[in-house]
Amino acid sequence: MQRLKLKIQLYCGDEIAMGPGKADLLVAIAQEGSISAAARRMDMSYRRAWLLVDAMNRCWLEPLVETSPGSAKGSGAKVTAFGDAVLSHYRALQSRLQGTSDCADYKALAAALLNEPKVSQKA
Amino acid sequence: MQRLKLKIQLYCGDEIAMGPGKADLLVAIAQEGSISAAARRMDMSYRRAWLLVDAMNRCWLEPLVETSPGSAKGSGAKVTAFGDAVLSHYRALQSRLQGTSDCADYKALAAALLNEPKVSQKA
Repeated sequence: MQRLKLKIQLYCGDEIAMGPGKADLLVAIAQEGSISAAARRMDMSYRRAWLLVDAMNRCWLEPLVETSPGSAKGSGAKVTAFGDAVLSHYRALQSRLQGTSDCADYKALAAALLNEPKVSQKA
Repeated sequence: MQRLKLKIQLYCGDEIAMGPGKADLLVAIAQEGSISAAARRMDMSYRRAWLLVDAMNRCWLEPLVETSPGSAKGSGAKVTAFGDAVLSHYRALQSRLQGTSDCADYKALAAALLNEPKVSQKA
């Protein structure tokens, strides 16, 4: 299964409400306790992490991330219970699809793939 | 199911051997009969289309696209029987996963999504 990468994206209008990167960011926030620490862990700018959190919070019935009142950069943030549930369902969906993809069609494709690409011929 | 987008990528080493864009390009080549016409149809440069074809041809046991001997830009190209089979399995995998994703976890996520994003609060 290491040949297959499944990217699941959920849309709210044209905005991506949840995807693999946003899911990983939620986990990082839950573990690090702040958006800035989560951003550092994921090697992204604070601004980018903040924009991803803002996008998520605008797409769902309830916010996924809460920041401490009057918080500035570096203050606390946590994943809400609602955010936890969303993340849970998303991970379950990833897991189910990863399992389903281990099927005859995948096996046929894996058998037809080289281990490493051939060297390119000159154009 | 319109809220969910599934992107399936198959890897050969670090190279993407097949994905949604490459699959669409194969279909376009089969229908248009040349890489340049397929590129125009997909609103991409000939060079980009050629590089995608080259990447695919280097990743599988056999080539997916054959060009006419001594062909220059504008000459014919066709999807090989092997390429057809690969595309078939890929489409079947896409279809199977799309069907599987219509499950309880997806329904829970869809029920928790807004139809349109909220307007952003000032930072």
